Amino acid sequence: MSPPGRVGVVGLGLVGGSLARDLRARGVEVLGWDADPATLAAAAAEGVVPMGRDLRELAGADLVVLAIPVTAARDALPAIAGASSGAVMTDVGSTKRSIMAAASAAGVDDRFVGAHPLAGGESSGWTASRAGLFRGARVFITPAPTASAAAVRRVTELWRGLGGAPELTTAREHDALMAWVSHAPQALSSALGVALQAAGVSRAEMGPGGRDATRLAGSSPEVWAQILAENSDEVAPAIRSVIARLQSIALAVETADIAELQAVLRRAREWSAGS
Amino acid sequence: MSPPGRVGVVGLGLVGGSLARDLRARGVEVLGWDADPATLAAAAAEGVVPMGRDLRELAGADLVVLAIPVTAARDALPAIAGASSGAVMTDVGSTKRSIMAAASAAGVDDRFVGAHPLAGGESSGWTASRAGLFRGARVFITPAPTASAAAVRRVTELWRGLGGAPELTTAREHDALMAWVSHAPQALSSALGVALQAAGVSRAEMGPGGRDATRLAGSSPEVWAQILAENSDEVAPAIRSVIARLQSIALAVETADIAELQAVLRRAREWSAGS
Repeated sequence: MSPPGRVGVVGLGLVGGSLARDLRARGVEVLGWDADPATLAAAAAEGVVPMGRDLRELAGADLVVLAIPVTAARDALPAIAGASSGAVMTDVGSTKRSIMAAASAAGVDDRFVGAHPLAGGESSGWTASRAGLFRGARVFITPAPTASAAAVRRVTELWRGLGGAPELTTAREHDALMAWVSHAPQALSSALGVALQAAGVSRAEMGPGGRDATRLAGSSPEVWAQILAENSDEVAPAIRSVIARLQSIALAVETADIAELQAVLRRAREWSAGS
Repeated sequence: MSPPGRVGVVGLGLVGGSLARDLRARGVEVLGWDADPATLAAAAAEGVVPMGRDLRELAGADLVVLAIPVTAARDALPAIAGASSGAVMTDVGSTKRSIMAAASAAGVDDRFVGAHPLAGGESSGWTASRAGLFRGARVFITPAPTASAAAVRRVTELWRGLGGAPELTTAREHDALMAWVSHAPQALSSALGVALQAAGVSRAEMGPGGRDATRLAGSSPEVWAQILAENSDEVAPAIRSVIARLQSIALAVETADIAELQAVLRRAREWSAGS
C-alpha cells in the first residue's frame, strides 16, 4: 500500500460518494466536489472537504477521481488535468474508449488511467452511497500503452485497498464485454418496464422472478442514456441479437411448439449453469 | 383453521416438496408421490408417507394437491379424481385456464379449486424445496363458478395456514396477468441467456445487474416450455410488445439519440418507482 495521500473526488453520487466514504474511513483526506450543494453539505458532514468550482484546491491532491457521467467527465478532463498538475487521474465510467481518447487528446495519457468498478446497481446519488460498496467487486483498469507504471500502480492499489479485484484490460475489450454483461441487460430491463407500463401492470404485481428481471429499469436515465449511446457500436448488435432470439421464442410460443421452446430454454439453462 | 386431516401431494418438486415439508411441520399426515424414486425416498426420510402408482391410498385424503407440471396434471386429473372420491383437489400450476377446463370435463369442478402460489424462482426439484417457502407469497385461487364453498375454503385455508396471502380471481384474469409479470420476463431472460451463450460470454462475467436480469434463465425447461405454450395467446402478444420497445431502443442506440434514450429510460424508471 502507498501512503494515504490526498484524493480529489469529482462527483459524489453512488460511486463517488461510496469511494469518498471508504477513503475517509481509512484516514485519507478527501477533497470532494458535486454539482448539488445539498450533496456537498452531506458529504462535508462525513468529513469530506468541500471544493469550490474553480478546482484550484486539486493542486494538493496526488490522485483525482472523476466520478461524474462519462460525457461530463470527458468535458471536464482538460480543466481538471490543468488544475491537478502531476496528479494521477482516473475515472469510474461504464464505457472506457471515449474517456481514454479524451485523455490522449488532452496529452495526459501518461497519468490518466481509466477504471470501472462493477458495483452499484439501480440506485443512484449520495444518499445511495455507502462504505464497503466495492468489496469483492471486479474493477477493470484500462491504461493506455503510454501510461506510466506509477500511475497504473496508484490506481490499481486504490481499488485493491478498498477490497476490489482489479483486472487490467484494454478500453476496447472492456467496452465489448460491457455491451453484453451490462448494457444490453439494461436495455432489456427498461424495454420490459416500458411494455409493462403500457399494459397497465404495476411493479407491485410482479413475482420474485419478474422483479429481478426488471430491477435495472430503476437505473438513472441520465447516466444510462449516455452509456448506451457512447457504446453504440457494441450495444446495438447485442440488443439486435437478443431481439432475434426473442422473435424465435415468440414464434414458438404462438405455434405452441413445445419441443422448440424446450430446446431454447435448455440452452439458456446450460449457459446459466456454466458459470 | 380446519382440523389437520390427511393431504395427498402428487409431485414432490420445489413447490410440492416445500408444501409437504410445511404440512409435516404442522403435524399433518402427508401422502406423497413422485415419479423419481430417489425423491420419494428423500421425502419419506422427512416423514412423508410414500404412495405407490395406483393411487388407491389417496382414498384416505381429504385434500389432494397436484404439484406436477400443468400438462401432466391435466392428464392425471381424471384418475386422481376417481381415486380420491370426495376429497377436495387443487393444483399449483402457473397457468390456470387449461386445468380448470380439465376439471370441468372430468366433472369435478365442484371440488377442484385451482391455485398458484407466487413462490419459488429458478431452482427446481425436491433438493431445492424448503419449509417456509410460501410465507408472504401471493397465492392466486381460481375456483370455477360451480365450486363448492367448502372446497374454496379448504384450499384458501391451506395456503393461509402456510403463511401465504390467498387472492380469489378467475383463471382468465390470472393467465392474462401472469403473461406479463412472469411468463414474458422468463422468455426475455432465456433469450438473453441464449444470446450471451452465442456471444461466448459466461454468466461468471456478469455484474450484479446482469445477474439479476438473467436469473430466470436457470428455470426448468420442461416446466417452462409447457407454461409458455399453455398461455400462448396471452404470452405471445406480451413478448411482441417487448420486442417492439427493444427495436425502438436499438434504433436510438444506433443513432446515439440521447434524448430518445433518456425518454424511454425515464418511462421505465417511472414505472419502476410506481410500485
